[in-house]
Amino acid sequence: MNETMKNIKKRNSCRDFHDTPLTEAQVKLLVEAALAAPSAQNIQPWHVTVITDKKFLDEMDATGVAELAVAKDKIYYDRIMSRGGKILYDAPCLIVVSAADSAWAQLDSGILCQNVVLAAESMGLGSCIVGLLRVPLGSHRGEEFKKRMQFPEGYEFAVSVLVGHVKTGKEPHDLDYSKVSFV
Amino acid sequence: MNETMKNIKKRNSCRDFHDTPLTEAQVKLLVEAALAAPSAQNIQPWHVTVITDKKFLDEMDATGVAELAVAKDKIYYDRIMSRGGKILYDAPCLIVVSAADSAWAQLDSGILCQNVVLAAESMGLGSCIVGLLRVPLGSHRGEEFKKRMQFPEGYEFAVSVLVGHVKTGKEPHDLDYSKVSFV
Repeated sequence: MNETMKNIKKRNSCRDFHDTPLTEAQVKLLVEAALAAPSAQNIQPWHVTVITDKKFLDEMDATGVAELAVAKDKIYYDRIMSRGGKILYDAPCLIVVSAADSAWAQLDSGILCQNVVLAAESMGLGSCIVGLLRVPLGSHRGEEFKKRMQFPEGYEFAVSVLVGHVKTGKEPHDLDYSKVSFV
Repeated sequence: MNETMKNIKKRNSCRDFHDTPLTEAQVKLLVEAALAAPSAQNIQPWHVTVITDKKFLDEMDATGVAELAVAKDKIYYDRIMSRGGKILYDAPCLIVVSAADSAWAQLDSGILCQNVVLAAESMGLGSCIVGLLRVPLGSHRGEEFKKRMQFPEGYEFAVSVLVGHVKTGKEPHDLDYSKVSFV
Protein backbone atom coordinates (compact mmCIF):
# COMPACT_ATOMS: atom_id res chain seq x y z
CA MET A 1 0.00 0.00 0.00
CA ASN A 2 1.35 3.45 -0.90
CA GLU A 3 2.21 6.10 1.69
CA THR A 4 -0.81 8.28 0.98
CA MET A 5 -3.20 5.37 1.47
CA LYS A 6 -1.36 4.46 4.67
CA ASN A 7 -1.86 7.98 5.98
CA ILE A 8 -5.53 7.99 4.96
CA LYS A 9 -6.08 4.70 6.79
CA LYS A 10 -4.17 5.38 9.99
CA ARG A 11 -5.54 8.89 10.50
CA ASN A 12 -7.63 9.36 13.61
CA SER A 13 -8.87 12.37 15.53
CA CYS A 14 -6.33 13.29 18.19
CA ARG A 15 -7.71 14.88 21.36
CA ASP A 16 -4.56 14.91 23.49
CA PHE A 17 -1.61 16.89 22.17
CA HIS A 18 1.83 17.78 23.48
CA ASP A 19 2.22 21.55 23.60
CA THR A 20 5.45 21.41 21.55
CA PRO A 21 5.17 24.13 18.91
CA LEU A 22 5.21 23.20 15.23
CA THR A 23 8.24 24.21 13.20
CA GLU A 24 7.98 26.86 10.51
CA ALA A 25 8.54 24.15 7.89
CA GLN A 26 5.60 22.14 9.24
CA VAL A 27 3.30 25.16 9.23
CA LYS A 28 4.40 25.99 5.68
CA LEU A 29 3.36 22.54 4.43
CA LEU A 30 -0.01 22.74 6.21
CA VAL A 31 -0.69 26.05 4.47
CA GLU A 32 0.36 24.66 1.10
CA ALA A 33 -2.01 21.73 1.59
CA ALA A 34 -4.87 24.08 2.48
CA LEU A 35 -4.35 26.32 -0.53
CA ALA A 36 -3.92 23.39 -2.94
CA ALA A 37 -7.44 22.12 -2.21
CA PRO A 38 -9.99 21.93 -5.01
CA SER A 39 -13.19 23.95 -4.75
CA ALA A 40 -16.32 24.38 -6.85
CA GLN A 41 -15.26 26.19 -10.03
CA ASN A 42 -11.94 26.88 -8.25
CA ILE A 43 -13.58 29.84 -6.51
CA GLN A 44 -11.70 29.10 -3.26
CA PRO A 45 -14.42 30.73 -1.12
CA TRP A 46 -12.24 30.51 1.96
CA HIS A 47 -9.83 32.40 4.17
CA VAL A 48 -7.29 30.45 6.20
CA THR A 49 -6.11 31.74 9.58
CA VAL A 50 -3.13 29.94 11.05
CA ILE A 51 -3.00 30.46 14.81
CA THR A 52 0.15 29.51 16.69
CA ASP A 53 -0.29 32.13 19.44
CA LYS A 54 -0.94 29.78 22.36
CA LYS A 55 -2.25 32.58 24.57
CA PHE A 56 -4.90 33.43 21.98
CA LEU A 57 -5.85 29.75 21.65
CA ASP A 58 -6.15 29.46 25.43
CA GLU A 59 -8.37 32.57 25.58
CA MET A 60 -10.75 31.14 23.00
CA ASP A 61 -10.69 27.75 24.69
CA ALA A 62 -11.55 29.20 28.12
CA THR A 63 -14.30 31.37 26.63
CA GLY A 64 -15.77 28.36 24.83
CA VAL A 65 -15.73 26.17 27.91
CA ALA A 66 -17.34 28.93 30.00
CA GLU A 67 -20.13 29.24 27.41
CA LEU A 68 -20.72 25.49 27.38
CA ALA A 69 -20.82 25.45 31.20
CA VAL A 70 -23.86 27.75 31.23
CA ALA A 71 -25.58 26.29 28.16
CA LYS A 72 -28.97 24.67 28.73
CA ASP A 73 -27.89 21.54 26.88
CA LYS A 74 -25.01 20.02 28.86
CA ILE A 75 -24.13 17.34 26.28
CA TYR A 76 -21.12 19.22 24.87
CA TYR A 77 -19.94 20.42 28.29
CA ASP A 78 -20.07 16.91 29.71
CA ARG A 79 -18.24 15.49 26.70
CA ILE A 80 -15.52 18.13 26.91
CA MET A 81 -15.14 17.65 30.66
CA SER A 82 -14.77 13.90 30.17
CA ARG A 83 -11.96 14.59 27.69
CA GLY A 84 -9.89 16.92 29.85
CA GLY A 85 -11.89 20.15 29.96
CA LYS A 86 -10.58 21.84 26.82
CA ILE A 87 -12.18 22.35 23.43
CA LEU A 88 -8.82 22.85 21.69
CA TYR A 89 -7.01 20.05 23.53
CA ASP A 90 -3.86 22.15 24.10
CA ALA A 91 -2.80 21.81 20.48
CA PRO A 92 -0.10 24.33 19.48
CA CYS A 93 -1.62 25.16 16.09
CA LEU A 94 -5.15 25.79 14.88
CA ILE A 95 -5.99 26.28 11.20
CA VAL A 96 -9.28 28.18 11.01
CA VAL A 97 -11.30 28.26 7.80
CA SER A 98 -13.75 31.11 7.34
CA ALA A 99 -15.84 31.31 4.20
CA ALA A 100 -18.08 33.55 2.19
CA ASP A 101 -21.68 32.43 2.22
CA SER A 102 -22.18 30.35 -0.93
CA ALA A 103 -23.90 27.15 -1.98
CA TRP A 104 -20.69 25.12 -1.82
CA ALA A 105 -18.82 26.86 1.02
CA GLN A 106 -19.35 24.07 3.55
CA LEU A 107 -18.39 21.38 1.07
CA ASP A 108 -15.32 23.30 -0.09
CA SER A 109 -14.27 23.94 3.51
CA GLY A 110 -14.50 20.23 4.26
CA ILE A 111 -12.34 19.42 1.24
CA LEU A 112 -9.72 21.92 2.37
CA CYS A 113 -9.55 20.69 5.93
CA GLN A 114 -9.04 17.07 4.87
CA ASN A 115 -6.00 18.21 2.87
CA VAL A 116 -4.65 19.78 6.06
CA VAL A 117 -5.44 16.65 8.09
CA LEU A 118 -3.58 14.38 5.67
CA ALA A 119 -0.67 16.79 5.39
CA ALA A 120 -0.39 16.66 9.19
CA GLU A 121 -0.57 12.85 9.16
CA SER A 122 2.15 12.70 6.50
CA MET A 123 4.47 14.65 8.81
CA GLY A 124 3.80 12.34 11.75
CA LEU A 125 1.57 14.92 13.43
CA GLY A 126 -1.90 14.42 14.84
CA SER A 127 -4.97 16.44 13.95
CA CYS A 128 -8.58 16.96 14.88
CA ILE A 129 -11.28 18.76 12.91
CA VAL A 130 -13.10 21.03 15.35
CA GLY A 131 -16.47 22.63 14.86
CA LEU A 132 -16.84 23.70 18.50
CA LEU A 133 -14.83 26.86 17.84
CA ARG A 134 -18.25 28.22 16.87
CA VAL A 135 -18.97 28.47 20.61
CA PRO A 136 -16.36 31.11 21.56
CA LEU A 137 -17.05 32.81 18.21
CA GLY A 138 -20.73 33.04 19.15
CA SER A 139 -19.94 34.47 22.60
CA HIS A 140 -19.75 38.10 23.74
CA ARG A 141 -16.10 38.05 22.65
CA GLY A 142 -16.88 36.55 19.23
CA GLU A 143 -16.47 39.73 17.19
CA GLU A 144 -13.15 40.47 18.89
CA PHE A 145 -11.90 36.94 18.16
CA LYS A 146 -12.98 37.13 14.50
CA LYS A 147 -11.20 40.44 14.11
CA ARG A 148 -8.00 39.04 15.61
CA MET A 149 -8.29 36.08 13.23
CA GLN A 150 -8.62 38.52 10.33
CA PHE A 151 -11.78 37.04 8.86
CA PRO A 152 -12.49 39.02 5.68
CA GLU A 153 -15.64 41.16 5.64
CA GLY A 154 -18.73 38.99 5.37
CA TYR A 155 -16.87 35.73 6.03
CA GLU A 156 -18.08 33.41 8.77
CA PHE A 157 -16.48 30.53 10.62
CA ALA A 158 -16.72 27.27 8.66
CA VAL A 159 -14.46 24.74 10.37
CA SER A 160 -11.07 24.45 12.02
CA VAL A 161 -8.31 21.87 12.31
CA LEU A 162 -6.05 21.36 15.30
CA VAL A 163 -2.55 20.12 14.53
CA GLY A 164 0.19 19.04 16.90
CA HIS A 165 2.31 16.25 18.26
CA VAL A 166 0.23 13.34 19.53
CA LYS A 167 0.39 12.74 23.28
CA THR A 168 -2.24 10.00 23.49
CA GLY A 169 -3.08 8.25 20.24
CA LYS A 170 -5.92 5.95 19.31
CA GLU A 171 -6.95 3.53 16.61
CA PRO A 172 -8.79 4.76 13.52
CA HIS A 173 -12.49 3.91 13.34
CA ASP A 174 -13.60 0.66 11.72
CA LEU A 175 -14.68 0.93 8.09
CA ASP A 176 -18.45 0.55 7.83
CA TYR A 177 -19.09 -1.35 4.59
CA SER A 178 -22.84 -1.21 5.16
CA LYS A 179 -22.53 2.35 3.87
CA VAL A 180 -21.45 1.30 0.36
CA SER A 181 -23.38 0.17 -2.71
CA PHE A 182 -21.78 -1.03 -5.94
CA VAL A 183 -23.60 -0.39 -9.20
CA MET B 1 8.78 16.44 0.39
CA ASN B 2 6.87 13.31 1.36
CA GLU B 3 4.65 11.36 -1.06
CA THR B 4 1.38 12.53 0.49
CA MET B 5 2.38 16.19 0.19
CA LYS B 6 3.45 15.56 -3.40
CA ASN B 7 0.03 14.09 -4.18
CA ILE B 8 -1.73 16.98 -2.44
CA LYS B 9 0.29 19.49 -4.46
CA LYS B 10 0.11 17.89 -7.90
CA ARG B 11 -3.61 17.07 -7.74
CA ASN B 12 -5.74 18.86 -10.30
CA SER B 13 -9.25 18.37 -11.56
CA CYS B 14 -9.18 16.06 -14.58
CA ARG B 15 -11.87 16.63 -17.21
CA ASP B 16 -10.63 14.29 -19.93
CA PHE B 17 -10.40 10.61 -19.03
CA HIS B 18 -9.54 7.42 -20.92
CA ASP B 19 -12.45 5.00 -20.71
CA THR B 20 -10.18 2.20 -19.38
CA PRO B 21 -12.03 0.62 -16.44
CA LEU B 22 -10.49 0.71 -12.99
CA THR B 23 -9.27 -2.56 -11.52
CA GLU B 24 -11.02 -4.14 -8.56
CA ALA B 25 -7.97 -3.35 -6.42
CA GLN B 26 -8.18 0.34 -7.35
CA VAL B 27 -11.89 0.52 -6.53
CA LYS B 28 -11.25 -1.24 -3.22
CA LEU B 29 -8.74 1.43 -2.16
CA LEU B 30 -11.07 4.27 -3.19
CA VAL B 31 -13.79 2.77 -1.01
CA GLU B 32 -11.41 2.33 1.92
CA ALA B 33 -10.39 5.97 1.61
CA ALA B 34 -14.03 7.08 1.57
CA LEU B 35 -14.96 5.06 4.65
CA ALA B 36 -11.84 6.11 6.59
CA ALA B 37 -12.85 9.79 6.46
CA PRO B 38 -13.50 11.66 9.68
CA SER B 39 -16.93 13.17 10.29
CA ALA B 40 -18.55 15.26 13.01
CA GLN B 41 -18.81 13.02 16.08
CA ASN B 42 -17.94 10.12 13.76
CA ILE B 43 -21.59 9.98 12.72
CA GLN B 44 -20.64 9.22 9.09
CA PRO B 45 -23.87 10.75 7.74
CA TRP B 46 -23.14 9.41 4.26
CA HIS B 47 -23.84 6.62 1.83
CA VAL B 48 -21.29 5.87 -0.87
CA THR B 49 -22.40 4.54 -4.26
CA VAL B 50 -19.62 3.28 -6.50
CA ILE B 51 -20.75 3.29 -10.13
CA THR B 52 -18.65 1.45 -12.70
CA ASP B 53 -21.60 0.63 -15.01
CA LYS B 54 -20.61 2.80 -17.97
CA LYS B 55 -24.06 2.51 -19.55
CA PHE B 56 -25.65 3.94 -16.40
CA LEU B 57 -23.09 6.75 -16.28
CA ASP B 58 -23.79 7.56 -19.93
CA GLU B 59 -27.54 7.65 -19.29
CA MET B 60 -27.13 10.12 -16.43
CA ASP B 61 -24.68 12.17 -18.48
CA ALA B 62 -27.01 12.42 -21.47
CA THR B 63 -29.97 13.29 -19.24
CA GLY B 64 -27.93 15.98 -17.51
CA VAL B 65 -26.74 17.53 -20.75
CA ALA B 66 -30.29 17.50 -22.16
CA GLU B 67 -31.51 19.33 -19.03
CA LEU B 68 -28.76 21.93 -19.29
CA ALA B 69 -29.56 22.46 -22.99
CA VAL B 70 -33.09 23.63 -22.16
CA ALA B 71 -32.20 25.53 -18.97
CA LYS B 72 -32.83 29.29 -19.02
CA ASP B 73 -29.32 29.98 -17.78
CA LYS B 74 -26.94 28.68 -20.45
CA ILE B 75 -23.74 29.20 -18.44
CA TYR B 76 -23.35 25.54 -17.46
CA TYR B 77 -24.39 24.26 -20.89
CA ASP B 78 -21.88 26.49 -22.65
CA ARG B 79 -19.12 25.49 -20.23
CA ILE B 80 -19.84 21.79 -20.69
CA MET B 81 -20.03 22.14 -24.47
CA SER B 82 -16.67 23.91 -24.49
CA ARG B 83 -15.21 20.95 -22.57
CA GLY B 84 -16.45 18.17 -24.83
CA GLY B 85 -20.19 18.01 -24.19
CA LYS B 86 -20.21 15.64 -21.21
CA ILE B 87 -20.80 16.29 -17.52
CA LEU B 88 -19.04 13.08 -16.46
CA TYR B 89 -16.16 13.38 -18.92
CA ASP B 90 -16.30 9.68 -19.90
CA ALA B 91 -14.72 8.61 -16.61
CA PRO B 92 -15.11 4.87 -15.91
CA CYS B 93 -15.93 5.29 -12.22
CA LEU B 94 -18.10 7.67 -10.25
CA ILE B 95 -18.21 7.70 -6.45
CA VAL B 96 -21.48 9.29 -5.39
CA VAL B 97 -21.99 10.56 -1.85
CA SER B 98 -25.54 10.89 -0.60
CA ALA B 99 -26.20 12.16 2.90
CA ALA B 100 -28.84 12.50 5.55
CA ASP B 101 -29.86 16.10 6.14
CA SER B 102 -27.80 17.34 9.07
CA ALA B 103 -25.87 20.44 10.10
CA TRP B 104 -22.52 18.96 9.08
CA ALA B 105 -23.52 16.76 6.12
CA GLN B 106 -22.03 19.03 3.46
CA LEU B 107 -18.81 19.52 5.39
CA ASP B 108 -18.48 15.80 6.10
CA SER B 109 -19.17 14.95 2.46
CA GLY B 110 -16.41 17.32 1.39
CA ILE B 111 -13.99 15.69 3.80
CA LEU B 112 -14.85 12.25 2.44
CA CYS B 113 -14.47 13.21 -1.20
CA GLN B 114 -11.02 14.71 -0.66
CA ASN B 115 -9.91 11.37 0.79
CA VAL B 116 -11.12 9.71 -2.43
CA VAL B 117 -9.40 12.36 -4.58
CA LEU B 118 -6.04 11.85 -2.83
CA ALA B 119 -6.40 8.07 -2.90
CA ALA B 120 -6.91 8.33 -6.67
CA GLU B 121 -3.89 10.62 -7.02
CA SER B 122 -1.76 8.20 -4.99
CA MET B 123 -2.57 5.45 -7.51
CA GLY B 124 -1.65 7.63 -10.48
CA LEU B 125 -5.29 8.17 -11.39
CA GLY B 126 -7.05 11.44 -12.11
CA SER B 127 -10.17 12.71 -10.39
CA CYS B 128 -12.72 15.47 -10.51
CA ILE B 129 -15.23 16.46 -7.85
CA VAL B 130 -18.57 16.92 -9.61
CA GLY B 131 -21.61 18.73 -8.27
CA LEU B 132 -23.42 18.82 -11.61
CA LEU B 133 -24.78 15.31 -11.05
CA ARG B 134 -27.54 17.23 -9.27
CA VAL B 135 -28.90 18.09 -12.72
CA PRO B 136 -29.83 14.57 -13.90
CA LEU B 137 -30.92 13.81 -10.32
CA GLY B 138 -33.28 16.78 -10.46
CA SER B 139 -34.73 15.70 -13.82
CA HIS B 140 -37.84 13.63 -14.59
CA ARG B 141 -35.59 10.55 -14.28
CA GLY B 142 -34.09 11.66 -10.94
CA GLU B 143 -36.06 9.31 -8.71
CA GLU B 144 -35.21 6.36 -10.96
CA PHE B 145 -31.51 7.26 -10.86
CA LYS B 146 -31.50 7.64 -7.07
CA LYS B 147 -33.18 4.26 -6.72
CA ARG B 148 -30.61 2.60 -8.97
CA MET B 149 -27.86 4.25 -6.91
CA GLN B 150 -29.45 2.83 -3.75
CA PHE B 151 -29.64 6.10 -1.83
CA PRO B 152 -30.99 5.22 1.62
CA GLU B 153 -34.44 6.57 2.53
CA GLY B 154 -34.27 10.30 3.18
CA TYR B 155 -30.74 10.69 1.81
CA GLU B 156 -30.06 13.27 -0.87
CA PHE B 157 -27.21 13.82 -3.30
CA ALA B 158 -24.27 15.64 -1.69
CA VAL B 159 -21.33 15.41 -4.07
CA SER B 160 -19.60 12.98 -6.42
CA VAL B 161 -16.06 12.21 -7.53
CA LEU B 162 -15.05 10.97 -10.97
CA VAL B 163 -11.98 8.73 -11.04
CA GLY B 164 -10.12 7.34 -14.04
CA HIS B 165 -6.96 7.33 -16.10
CA VAL B 166 -5.98 10.82 -17.22
CA LYS B 167 -6.16 11.43 -20.96
CA THR B 168 -5.36 15.16 -20.92
CA GLY B 169 -3.72 16.49 -17.79
CA LYS B 170 -3.20 20.00 -16.56
CA GLU B 171 -1.22 21.91 -13.98
CA PRO B 172 -2.59 22.41 -10.46
CA HIS B 173 -3.85 25.89 -9.62
CA ASP B 174 -1.46 28.46 -8.18
CA LEU B 175 -1.53 28.80 -4.40
CA ASP B 176 -3.18 32.07 -3.41
CA TYR B 177 -1.32 33.30 -0.35
CA SER B 178 -3.57 36.35 -0.11
CA LYS B 179 -6.05 33.95 1.47
CA VAL B 180 -3.89 33.29 4.54
CA SER B 181 -3.38 35.17 7.80
CA PHE B 182 -0.88 34.19 10.48
CA VAL B 183 -1.74 34.97 14.09
